[in-house]
Amino acid sequence: MKNLRVGLIGYGFMGRTHSNAFRKVNNFFDVPCQPVLHTVCARNAERAKDFAAKWGYANVETDWRKVVESPDIDLIDIASPNDTHAEIAIAAAKAGKMVMCEKPLGRNGAESEAIVDAVEQAGVPNMVWYNYRRVPAVTLAKQLIDEGRLGRIFHYRAKFLQDWTISSDLPQGGEGLWRLDVKVAGSGVTGDLLAHCIDTAMWLNGGIDEVSAMTETFIKARKHSLTGEVEPVGIDDASLFLAKFNNGSLATFEATRYARGHKALYTLEINGEHASIMWDLHDLHRLQYFDHKDEGKLRGWKSIHITDREHPYMSNWWVPGLQIGYEHTFVHQVADFLTAVGGGHAAAPTFREGLATDDVTDAVLASAASRSWTKVKTR
Amino acid sequence: MKNLRVGLIGYGFMGRTHSNAFRKVNNFFDVPCQPVLHTVCARNAERAKDFAAKWGYANVETDWRKVVESPDIDLIDIASPNDTHAEIAIAAAKAGKMVMCEKPLGRNGAESEAIVDAVEQAGVPNMVWYNYRRVPAVTLAKQLIDEGRLGRIFHYRAKFLQDWTISSDLPQGGEGLWRLDVKVAGSGVTGDLLAHCIDTAMWLNGGIDEVSAMTETFIKARKHSLTGEVEPVGIDDASLFLAKFNNGSLATFEATRYARGHKALYTLEINGEHASIMWDLHDLHRLQYFDHKDEGKLRGWKSIHITDREHPYMSNWWVPGLQIGYEHTFVHQVADFLTAVGGGHAAAPTFREGLATDDVTDAVLASAASRSWTKVKTR
Amino acid sequence: MKNLRVGLIGYGFMGRTHSNAFRKVNNFFDVPCQPVLHTVCARNAERAKDFAAKWGYANVETDWRKVVESPDIDLIDIASPNDTHAEIAIAAAKAGKMVMCEKPLGRNGAESEAIVDAVEQAGVPNMVWYNYRRVPAVTLAKQLIDEGRLGRIFHYRAKFLQDWTISSDLPQGGEGLWRLDVKVAGSGVTGDLLAHCIDTAMWLNGGIDEVSAMTETFIKARKHSLTGEVEPVGIDDASLFLAKFNNGSLATFEATRYARGHKALYTLEINGEHASIMWDLHDLHRLQYFDHKDEGKLRGWKSIHITDREHPYMSNWWVPGLQIGYEHTFVHQVADFLTAVGGGHAAAPTFREGLATDDVTDAVLASAASRSWTKVKTR
Amino acid sequence: MKNLRVGLIGYGFMGRTHSNAFRKVNNFFDVPCQPVLHTVCARNAERAKDFAAKWGYANVETDWRKVVESPDIDLIDIASPNDTHAEIAIAAAKAGKMVMCEKPLGRNGAESEAIVDAVEQAGVPNMVWYNYRRVPAVTLAKQLIDEGRLGRIFHYRAKFLQDWTISSDLPQGGEGLWRLDVKVAGSGVTGDLLAHCIDTAMWLNGGIDEVSAMTETFIKARKHSLTGEVEPVGIDDASLFLAKFNNGSLATFEATRYARGHKALYTLEINGEHASIMWDLHDLHRLQYFDHKDEGKLRGWKSIHITDREHPYMSNWWVPGLQIGYEHTFVHQVADFLTAVGGGHAAAPTFREGLATDDVTDAVLASAASRSWTKVKTR
Repeated sequence: MKNLRVGLIGYGFMGRTHSNAFRKVNNFFDVPCQPVLHTVCARNAERAKDFAAKWGYANVETDWRKVVESPDIDLIDIASPNDTHAEIAIAAAKAGKMVMCEKPLGRNGAESEAIVDAVEQAGVPNMVWYNYRRVPAVTLAKQLIDEGRLGRIFHYRAKFLQDWTISSDLPQGGEGLWRLDVKVAGSGVTGDLLAHCIDTAMWLNGGIDEVSAMTETFIKARKHSLTGEVEPVGIDDASLFLAKFNNGSLATFEATRYARGHKALYTLEINGEHASIMWDLHDLHRLQYFDHKDEGKLRGWKSIHITDREHPYMSNWWVPGLQIGYEHTFVHQVADFLTAVGGGHAAAPTFREGLATDDVTDAVLASAASRSWTKVKTR
Repeated sequence: MKNLRVGLIGYGFMGRTHSNAFRKVNNFFDVPCQPVLHTVCARNAERAKDFAAKWGYANVETDWRKVVESPDIDLIDIASPNDTHAEIAIAAAKAGKMVMCEKPLGRNGAESEAIVDAVEQAGVPNMVWYNYRRVPAVTLAKQLIDEGRLGRIFHYRAKFLQDWTISSDLPQGGEGLWRLDVKVAGSGVTGDLLAHCIDTAMWLNGGIDEVSAMTETFIKARKHSLTGEVEPVGIDDASLFLAKFNNGSLATFEATRYARGHKALYTLEINGEHASIMWDLHDLHRLQYFDHKDEGKLRGWKSIHITDREHPYMSNWWVPGLQIGYEHTFVHQVADFLTAVGGGHAAAPTFREGLATDDVTDAVLASAASRSWTKVKTR
Repeated sequence: MKNLRVGLIGYGFMGRTHSNAFRKVNNFFDVPCQPVLHTVCARNAERAKDFAAKWGYANVETDWRKVVESPDIDLIDIASPNDTHAEIAIAAAKAGKMVMCEKPLGRNGAESEAIVDAVEQAGVPNMVWYNYRRVPAVTLAKQLIDEGRLGRIFHYRAKFLQDWTISSDLPQGGEGLWRLDVKVAGSGVTGDLLAHCIDTAMWLNGGIDEVSAMTETFIKARKHSLTGEVEPVGIDDASLFLAKFNNGSLATFEATRYARGHKALYTLEINGEHASIMWDLHDLHRLQYFDHKDEGKLRGWKSIHITDREHPYMSNWWVPGLQIGYEHTFVHQVADFLTAVGGGHAAAPTFREGLATDDVTDAVLASAASRSWTKVKTR
Repeated sequence: MKNLRVGLIGYGFMGRTHSNAFRKVNNFFDVPCQPVLHTVCARNAERAKDFAAKWGYANVETDWRKVVESPDIDLIDIASPNDTHAEIAIAAAKAGKMVMCEKPLGRNGAESEAIVDAVEQAGVPNMVWYNYRRVPAVTLAKQLIDEGRLGRIFHYRAKFLQDWTISSDLPQGGEGLWRLDVKVAGSGVTGDLLAHCIDTAMWLNGGIDEVSAMTETFIKARKHSLTGEVEPVGIDDASLFLAKFNNGSLATFEATRYARGHKALYTLEINGEHASIMWDLHDLHRLQYFDHKDEGKLRGWKSIHITDREHPYMSNWWVPGLQIGYEHTFVHQVADFLTAVGGGHAAAPTFREGLATDDVTDAVLASAASRSWTKVKTR
């Protein structure tokens, strides 16, 4: 089996999910390559060393440019904050490396476009970590839609609800909190949470034509964890929009970090002519399905426990009834990437697909600012 | 339409559910008779008068014998404590009245047998108020089983869990508390709660062959609300048994008033070769159904919202999606009784069926006392 | 007890729910008046007679003006199609009758304003049948909010999803189908379903400042059931809007009759600083509640089975654990109306509150037409 | 960090769960030792080599005695069929190795006693893989009970329902099917499924005093997959029992492989004086909790999403809201074992605790055979 030497940039929450996926994929999936944890790179050398020891990275580096340029590395995996994605990804592409990048691809469409141009010019394999496509229940939803079981789609609904920033004592910026710093993150929940909802939505239901959005920053100023100063908050705490898809279906989307009681409640619902689907991240191992073709008196919403060998990815895991969790979606994504790369194919979601999501989030933010219906940029 | 003049004995909780059913049935069901609330009878004349005023009974009586003997009454409805059932029912039968009786029929099989003999000799219509058969979801379960959809039955499970007697301060006996007085009630949860489970079970799954039971009285002595004396508690607080049905299926049954958090949680589950069913009283308007014949990747438990016109009884109520509640089961029972009586048929559950349930509860109590497997009496 | 002689106009679905409520209220609630079913009025004399027989109305009338003017009637209850509300209500007010009117009050704010002017000038008691306020779980939600348990409100979400008009074979207009005829109904789901959501929302969370809406008519033409002609469909099949409440909270609202699998799924969610609430009509006897003040490791969403004596209205019904259903909300509304009238108070929702809801639906339809954020009219 | 060289016997389903746990534990837990995948041993050399390649075992062996005697191995992990446990475990103990053994420990109490004697005489660390204790929700249940929150326990209920052997075409015995061969497995669902329920039950609720059991073999004969002959089935397909715990609480236990619709539905319920608990394996990341001390009108069953840092084991994984799955319970068990071993402590469940469970399953089978209440052996 061919080795694929990984250079990981960043060691935060996402650095862990990626590393775990690289380490596990060959235990469970028959794929043509084997990721090798070659180097982890971060500015803080001490913590990078600890991370390398914990996860089995052979080398530690503090300058990402050295990793990008190293001839011993095949794949650059970007798990650092959003403001670093473009520079690293473009350099990696120029160096001829495969590139994987955490979502969102750039902080906005313009940044993402530059990244896409770079990887497409270089012709290197690339993928954005929109991991929720690889929740087996969501992949099954995609199969059902592609098989035509839902018929014409009328409605799409998605929410991503969290509650971790309600306290006004929470500082913004700095280690573990860069998602609250608009300069680093690009936006608030729009890029962080809605981007997930939009990626899945376009995968399942096609492109979005136009949006009418509203955003809000509930806590207007917070202490910055690095400067210690109370500064205005630049991010959107909540972002809601109406949308019309190209196929004529109507949608509501909403993301917030002020929904008390919900930790990471990503929900999606699709209503078609013949059947409907519901799924949520708090019970990710279940798909709710309603089929109007069922016999009348027995119609109802079915809770499908997605743990059978017939379900996407599940024959690689345990036995029926035994659920997998969040981290497995990253393993699936690596497995699909390795299979694609081994076969010379592109693995979705490509950077170009990541750009399409950023075009929608751009339209959302523009609509909220202009208080008007806004067309999504078409390319 | 023919009037059916009702004489109600008892005005407690069950007196209310029956009265409501008699009053409503003609608003919703096309039945050949119309119940007329002729007389309510109870020892306390004041409260009986209040009750009559509230419910529209034309007359009040304190001596049940007068009601039973009155030529102006067609139907005697017994909603008084268990220790009065036999005497009243037998007298009513002898007077040639139709008789409806709250469950359990007698305090034990011997009492019930005498009642059955009386009504069968008199040839009068009779019915026990085992109302849970008429929950539309339960009736639908019966249809599915009768249609052969479950195939061979392997398992039956039923529980009836309450928590209202956990406090040792609760007195026993007297108004509203006679269910704690063994002399009045006959037994504790065995006759009060398990009897419901057993009636439904035998209706759905046929007769029970033998049982192994265990009972417990957690609080050994309570103050009697009438005497003020602390007296030993004679009832069973909890009653559990294993059973084998005549069809070879295995069962667990359990009832208790010490299951903290459950108010009236009657649950039943049936596992067949091809399909399975679950239902519970806390969400009585739903039936859970699993059909192995569904396509593999889409198999799951379906939550059927029993509010469609195709569902039993439901075309008589509102529109799809709008649920009915507990009290409607009594309306259904009256509707079925009136239809049966109008057509010259017997309406189930007849007193004979009520006796069959008492034979099982007798076996349960005998098994718990003897600590051995006990055959259910066959007649 | 004082009798209140009711003249009911209309005998459809709502005529049944109201009649049932009038008939039952005194069996369960101690109220100072007793409704008497005096007259039912409808154009079809035969069917009106059947209805009167079924429900116990003493008289039948085909000309509503005679009912309104009759000295033997105290209360006019309007359960006829929307296009008749204004004329009847205004005449009833002028005749000095109490008036109850099905929702929406008028087909638009202008009609409703005229109605409000009439009842306020006449000084007669009045109430709109927004029955969902009287679901005990929803009333409890109101209590919790009024007690300050949620703290600052950040988010409100409401949906009303149905699926009964998906088939293009369904005709529009005529008996049982006037909700599809824009001339009769005024609008589609906006007035029929969103109006319910808006009434509850403003009751729970205060006034709505502005909206951005989108509507859609999925099936553009349908056969008219009366003319037999295929005609353009004038109603909105789906209506979605973003809203900002006066208290600064953000909202999404959605109603549709094209959500396969949902029969009458009215859902609402409120996220506050300290606590959150969820409720839905398909399990109307439960309230979901999350309280951040709970001990950390034990925090979670609680499913409260709203059947205890401490819960709103429930001490009047059965015993803990035994659920009520849809129809009971109308009984509660009559009980509150009778209590208010008996005490000389106004009973909410008054016609003026009904007008406020129509002002929001007007803004929704105007926003959808103009594709722009639209302020709700303030009065 | 000290290396702990693992010799794994068996490479089936459990061989995979153990290997995954050994490989992952140091990525997520700070423990004093690091498992090293030294040798996998199985009779089929080819498949053992494949397994070793997939999981990273350095060596392959076909004779377990060589592994047990190897000076290069510290820990023998037994994941082979039940009939091999005793011989291997005893030899490993004699060789001074640490021993971990899949459940049940022996095929019956006598076998288990011999194993316990061996490890206790040798003084080697030992643990049975009753992994469900380490489901974070179950561990939290244990904490709540130990904190006294439930008060006096009245009821315990456990079920383990599967449906994979309903087809009479399924052969018995051989690769992947040895659980159907009584000579290899020792018993059917009693040792395979009930053993799990019993281990958890005694951990949470103390010892079991006596049982009344019933077993059934629904399919009396099956083709043996190795011989090709149709042979009588020796295992129990279903096993149900009533029990009394030493603390006076009453219980029902049930396991079956004939519960259509349930794949691995292990459920447990505990009802205490003050609070109650429910959990099930199909949604293992949730704990249901009812606390009577909650304010009256807000009492209800809470669904606790066990993904917070305060929940057992969870601070080692991801962030709140992101669920883990089945396999993580094995990681937890290894982590606890390594911590215990590193600190010189015994790690529960020890072999002695595994023996206690086998004493109960012995009593269950004896009670079913004798059709009488049977005391659990006390040691």
